[in-house]
Amino acid sequence: MPDQSNAFEIKPIGVIHSPFREAQGAPIQPVFAPDTQFEAELLPEYLDGLRDLAGFERIWLMYWFDRAPAARLVVVPFRDSTERGLFATRAPCRPVPLGLSCVRLLGIRGKLLICSGADILDGTPLLDIKPYVSEFDAFPNSRAGWFDGSPESRTHADDRFDPGEAGSKRDEIPDSD
Amino acid sequence: MPDQSNAFEIKPIGVIHSPFREAQGAPIQPVFAPDTQFEAELLPEYLDGLRDLAGFERIWLMYWFDRAPAARLVVVPFRDSTERGLFATRAPCRPVPLGLSCVRLLGIRGKLLICSGADILDGTPLLDIKPYVSEFDAFPNSRAGWFDGSPESRTHADDRFDPGEAGSKRDEIPDSD
Repeated sequence: MPDQSNAFEIKPIGVIHSPFREAQGAPIQPVFAPDTQFEAELLPEYLDGLRDLAGFERIWLMYWFDRAPAARLVVVPFRDSTERGLFATRAPCRPVPLGLSCVRLLGIRGKLLICSGADILDGTPLLDIKPYVSEFDAFPNSRAGWFDGSPESRTHADDRFDPGEAGSKRDEIPDSD
Repeated sequence: MPDQSNAFEIKPIGVIHSPFREAQGAPIQPVFAPDTQFEAELLPEYLDGLRDLAGFERIWLMYWFDRAPAARLVVVPFRDSTERGLFATRAPCRPVPLGLSCVRLLGIRGKLLICSGADILDGTPLLDIKPYVSEFDAFPNSRAGWFDGSPESRTHADDRFDPGEAGSKRDEIPDSD
């Protein structure tokens, strides 16, 4: 049985600057806004880790869905009109609200990664940056369950995953300073 | 400037059961052990979230590198003999030690996801499961920086990212129960 008592603390390594202030109207995946530029800002203490990254056409951004509502295990995803198990969707209301986006890296200017393909809200805490490596990550034509048969062609978000309380931040540990 | 004071608490949703007890000798990516089976065990309270997942050929597992050493910003990665910036590598010694693997989903038996393509150590805390969707995730032939020109063909790990102290667990919040 998994140990249910362990817990880990995460401190962001930076923040996302994007044109999207709220979920409504934002693209639901980078592929639906391939030309929308945004920036990932890294904290200065991590700058040395960016060496060699500019050679990659695409990068993974991992981030914290800080404005997602509490976890729901069954959802009607943006791309469907039927209830689906949460883990069979990319919806933000996850038990551990981790976001994952493959974006195009246009350039690096100091602590700023200039990217295109924005589907991330402005102010989102950045947790990790990984290089996109086709050999590890690209599996074209993988069978994709309900996505393959979905009649929904929605590409931008509505309010279905808005938080219940305005301004609430998910799972933040109170600042002890 | 990013807010450096915020922090988030993560509680695993399950645990990985795999044949690999230590990093040395384990494959460095799922593609290098495509036939090695392993299991991802979900905590029972999240079972409803698995509905519809069986239709996906591949899934993303996101997990906590609990046995990674402290963060290093410059590393010699497994696939190279030159120092590289950490964020241009998939090395485990990251500021936020999040792991990401695309694995093949063979089946679901109750709370167990039967998978192949293991590169994850036995006992690793599982944080999230997402469906692999080619439309969002597959970008074949993406330019991949130093990976593209690397003369190293290593596919399995050595001890370069072993923790300094035996048995140390990274960033675990002491259990208050």
